[in-house]
Amino acid sequence: MKKIEAVKFEDDKIILINQTKLPLNEEYIVTDDYERIALAIERLEVRGAPAIGVTAAYALALSIKNQNENVEEKFLKAYERLKITRPTAVNLFFGLDAIKNEFEKYKNDSQLYLKLIDAAKRLHEEDIDMCEKIALNGLSIFNRKMRVLTHCNTGALATGGSGTALNVIRHAFFSGFIKHVHVDETRPLLQGSRLTAWELDKLCIPFSINTDSTAAVLMKEKKVDLVITGADRIAVNGDTANKIGTYNLAVLARHHNIPFYIAAPSSTIDGNCPNGDEIKIELRSKDELVKIGECRFTSDAYDAYCPAFDVTPAELITGIITERGVFRKPYKFENV
Amino acid sequence: MKKIEAVKFEDDKIILINQTKLPLNEEYIVTDDYERIALAIERLEVRGAPAIGVTAAYALALSIKNQNENVEEKFLKAYERLKITRPTAVNLFFGLDAIKNEFEKYKNDSQLYLKLIDAAKRLHEEDIDMCEKIALNGLSIFNRKMRVLTHCNTGALATGGSGTALNVIRHAFFSGFIKHVHVDETRPLLQGSRLTAWELDKLCIPFSINTDSTAAVLMKEKKVDLVITGADRIAVNGDTANKIGTYNLAVLARHHNIPFYIAAPSSTIDGNCPNGDEIKIELRSKDELVKIGECRFTSDAYDAYCPAFDVTPAELITGIITERGVFRKPYKFENV
Repeated sequence: MKKIEAVKFEDDKIILINQTKLPLNEEYIVTDDYERIALAIERLEVRGAPAIGVTAAYALALSIKNQNENVEEKFLKAYERLKITRPTAVNLFFGLDAIKNEFEKYKNDSQLYLKLIDAAKRLHEEDIDMCEKIALNGLSIFNRKMRVLTHCNTGALATGGSGTALNVIRHAFFSGFIKHVHVDETRPLLQGSRLTAWELDKLCIPFSINTDSTAAVLMKEKKVDLVITGADRIAVNGDTANKIGTYNLAVLARHHNIPFYIAAPSSTIDGNCPNGDEIKIELRSKDELVKIGECRFTSDAYDAYCPAFDVTPAELITGIITERGVFRKPYKFENV
Repeated sequence: MKKIEAVKFEDDKIILINQTKLPLNEEYIVTDDYERIALAIERLEVRGAPAIGVTAAYALALSIKNQNENVEEKFLKAYERLKITRPTAVNLFFGLDAIKNEFEKYKNDSQLYLKLIDAAKRLHEEDIDMCEKIALNGLSIFNRKMRVLTHCNTGALATGGSGTALNVIRHAFFSGFIKHVHVDETRPLLQGSRLTAWELDKLCIPFSINTDSTAAVLMKEKKVDLVITGADRIAVNGDTANKIGTYNLAVLARHHNIPFYIAAPSSTIDGNCPNGDEIKIELRSKDELVKIGECRFTSDAYDAYCPAFDVTPAELITGIITERGVFRKPYKFENV
């Protein structure tokens, strides 16, 4: 099975695919400079919450590579710098804090740098492992060769491993359960037609891209057997926040009697969030609606409504695939 | 009430707003050269079936302005040239043939040019009249100040008059029935965020643009009281072909219990088409999915599914507003 790695660590350097250049150019950032890695996170050259967490962990470990003087001061400076790259990404803080805890434990150890790199590698491996478990659990939802529709990018590019929803699709394909993948372009940032398409092309999985509103026609024409998307946050009752457009798909799937699945790590389930009404939705800049890259096509004087996410009510979700198993309605996550 | 005119005829010249430049630049094409007008139709500088029909009629009449020799030959050459500008636009042929009939009738009349211009003006006035009747009939669907959602461009820019669905919205606003208009950007060609937004801005009607899949969230958040779109072709049973994304909206409207209306001239009803299954849907080039203008953002090597239109089943349509009245389920168009 072919493999794509958004984040690699080799010869004491990090190797990142520059995701802002994909799919038109496949460029790599190879560096051991934490400041360059901080910039990569800020510029979205690396994106996807789990991928950011792993990247930041390596960056913080690298900040003390070859340092002999004022090591603690340099480490804390790097920690503060990396922390402000994406202020709302929980995985970022998780990755940084794991390395910081390791630093406190071993700061007087002559092998400190190696200890930190090992900790970053463990985080990376946990992420890889979690992705594989989600994919294996996801295989149970396939019972024949199916046409699947997905939204946004939930693949190797978004994680330290091989992805969440897109990894389910990848495993299902290589197990003979996928005939075709329909990829929503995913306005406004086009993660579907840029990143998911790039991954599927690399993996030689047959796919086609479509505008988001064409999903309805595909379902009406009976070209979709199953919908799978990722999740950004799942409430205790199963209501799920994900990339804008997910709720639209869930309504369409219900109307056309098509199963609608979510795939995500169980860490996405927020035990403090009883239901979707409690999930605050980030509103994005209208820039995303009026231009693509440097190419502006309409006036930025017009009002725009640009939520980053939407919330799909649990009752529209057929099942939630996690590394701990596939949960089904009525959702009960107490033991997760 | 403010007025936008996509097509004007003044001082023996045609004046067209260059729609490819909107909304970032408001440029006009002022010409009496039919070849320049043919190019304007080909380049989509003027678009929308009714607007093209009126424009082509003026162009054909202008082809004999100030001509004293070989008039018939020149006229027929212009007729053939204009006919190939948009080979599938029925209104184009209708406009050209109306002027050709007039030419046959008056070809030996010393006032021939004026007769042809008068015929083009009559076509233009009929279009204006049709738009106003649709709008007045449409007022009956409003019973309070409402938030309306629309798709694509169905306004003055698409017709010789003030539009179809967007003209209903315009009249309703100036009659006090509209609080806010939500405008789907309408991928792939963005007629919503470029052209409808430009018209609403000119008319000082409060609006905001949104990605097409955000319509679902707007409905869930109870920010939409009514959906109105145009139509490209209506079958005898009421099934309606319109811009891709319309069917998606109709499914969403049904799920959220929101009325869904179509507004179109009765000439859109195709007496030879019993139902939507008979409507052949044009597939467009994948270019529309992988670039905007000259700005390409993903690979054109990827497969893409890009239908220009979709078909909304009659049972999802609350009513069809025409210049002859508002039709409701079950649709019976025998006398139209």
